[in-house]
Amino acid sequence: MDIKVLNRKQLEEILEMPAVIEGVKAVYEAKAEGGTAVWPLVEHHFPELKAVTDVRSGAVMGDVNVHGLKMLNNFPGNAGTEFPVFGGMLMVFDSTNGAPLGIMDASYITCMRTGAAGGISAALFSRKDAKTLMILGAGRQSIYQIGAALLLMPGIKKLVVCDPLSPDGANGYVEALPGNLKTQLNVERPDVEMIAEPDVQKAVGQADTIITITPSRTPVIKKEWVKPGTHFSCIGADMIGKEEIDPEIFRGARVFCDDIDQCCRVGETEIPFKTGVIAKEQIAGEIGQVLNGMIPGRTDDEQITVFDATGLAPLDLVTAKAAVQLAKEKGLGLTAEL
Amino acid sequence: MDIKVLNRKQLEEILEMPAVIEGVKAVYEAKAEGGTAVWPLVEHHFPELKAVTDVRSGAVMGDVNVHGLKMLNNFPGNAGTEFPVFGGMLMVFDSTNGAPLGIMDASYITCMRTGAAGGISAALFSRKDAKTLMILGAGRQSIYQIGAALLLMPGIKKLVVCDPLSPDGANGYVEALPGNLKTQLNVERPDVEMIAEPDVQKAVGQADTIITITPSRTPVIKKEWVKPGTHFSCIGADMIGKEEIDPEIFRGARVFCDDIDQCCRVGETEIPFKTGVIAKEQIAGEIGQVLNGMIPGRTDDEQITVFDATGLAPLDLVTAKAAVQLAKEKGLGLTAEL
Repeated sequence: MDIKVLNRKQLEEILEMPAVIEGVKAVYEAKAEGGTAVWPLVEHHFPELKAVTDVRSGAVMGDVNVHGLKMLNNFPGNAGTEFPVFGGMLMVFDSTNGAPLGIMDASYITCMRTGAAGGISAALFSRKDAKTLMILGAGRQSIYQIGAALLLMPGIKKLVVCDPLSPDGANGYVEALPGNLKTQLNVERPDVEMIAEPDVQKAVGQADTIITITPSRTPVIKKEWVKPGTHFSCIGADMIGKEEIDPEIFRGARVFCDDIDQCCRVGETEIPFKTGVIAKEQIAGEIGQVLNGMIPGRTDDEQITVFDATGLAPLDLVTAKAAVQLAKEKGLGLTAEL
Repeated sequence: MDIKVLNRKQLEEILEMPAVIEGVKAVYEAKAEGGTAVWPLVEHHFPELKAVTDVRSGAVMGDVNVHGLKMLNNFPGNAGTEFPVFGGMLMVFDSTNGAPLGIMDASYITCMRTGAAGGISAALFSRKDAKTLMILGAGRQSIYQIGAALLLMPGIKKLVVCDPLSPDGANGYVEALPGNLKTQLNVERPDVEMIAEPDVQKAVGQADTIITITPSRTPVIKKEWVKPGTHFSCIGADMIGKEEIDPEIFRGARVFCDDIDQCCRVGETEIPFKTGVIAKEQIAGEIGQVLNGMIPGRTDDEQITVFDATGLAPLDLVTAKAAVQLAKEKGLGLTAEL
């Protein structure tokens, strides 16, 4: 059996955001109809190193028909060394016969499918006339959020980037952004004014759509700053204790999840759920149900909407399968006989 | 970062049983001192295909200092196709920095470390004067059990192989055995008489040491057949419902496990434990405690001893790390830049 072994550089060449977006949408829709499986998360901490490793596994049934997993390693002590702080590997198998299809670097797959999740949800739940997109967080994950959102939201004319960790830092980020969007994601939006905003409150006050992509453990955005009709795509919180926005924003908002149970356990919804601000029954539903037309998304222009994404192994697997197919077509990557 | 990608054929060239035995012993000893971690097992069934996939992950601390996992696929419908019924892949990471070390076929690693477990336990718990070794099961796993036991037990002069699924089948197996032991495992024991025995009762009655390595779900060996002083290494049962020997054999026996909790959940100990034949407190301990000298093994020559092995991810990881090192030294396997 020949399988593909793909490193990050090859995946950067192979994967394109529009294809990843299609795969992520297909998985969300399949999930709404019971066509995906998410298996129990395994998480382990290395206390002395402040490091954490986790294993996310699952399956996509139907035409995709794959199962597999990724093991991610977050070793903050690697900063400044030759080893990445955030790395890991993914393996994907054909569920018709259990044969391996490919092994690959997991970090780029994760970045791309997470960007796609942010972009799809922002386009789906924002007001139709949304013009201003705010991104909270100017770390390495942000560009994938921005790229996917700008691909899917032609109505956006202004992008405001806030870096709560270093308010001035977003200046350099925004300056390099048009070039990076072009070279890394093939996204060109000269019609969009891009600014860095050191004052988070000021940024929130003008935003129609807010994507949060920070590792924050205390709320950065207060409820009283938010104007009616704002949509939040909360992407950063994916572990117990992480939160980016005021739990009070959930009160009265129309809330969607990628997976309701997982979001109540480890997502942005965790704290509002555990403190009783929102009950599970008050969550409108999962994004796949909206994409499928099973439930409505935003129901009026004044409503606050929140989408909480915690990440699903099936998103990685569908993206990995696409990468293997594209690698074969393009003759890229290493082929190993296994 | 360069990592090794190793397929089964390369692993067959690279790994040698004595080195695997050393690694398995070291892991058992480390476990007794808290130097290993076994993370929660993930298991998924594909009911339509009668297939099952599982993920076993964990870590070995100390000098070995690795973590990782294997995903095993058991697809019985593959019989007679180009795809293996039993396959899977393993990934191992350096726990000092989370960097990947290697990716490899998991089936051969599993065979070798399982053989080592059987051999180590048989040598450790059998009477010092044990002369007759019985192997229950003549499937693809048996040769690794036989090879490791014959390496570690020079006193064995007779080997009796029983195949409960096809009593005659063991004839051909035994005929080819000396040659296969030599070519596959570099084990030569011309001093050992090797016979196939169609009558399980007759085989049990003459055995000093019995290794069971079948996928049985009903007991094959009855208590009344067993002579005093017999040792059992029960290797086959590693999932809920599997059992190879009469639960009554556990009554009054001195019982050891590779991992007490896991054996009570999914091992040969499962049924005796769940039916109250043996309580957890009546289990003597784990094999690593005996290897370490923390508790005694067999305490008299008339005693029945039982060792139950369910398999531990750390055994795979230590073997995988050794394979990567040997592959580098021997210049074998594919090198991938990840």
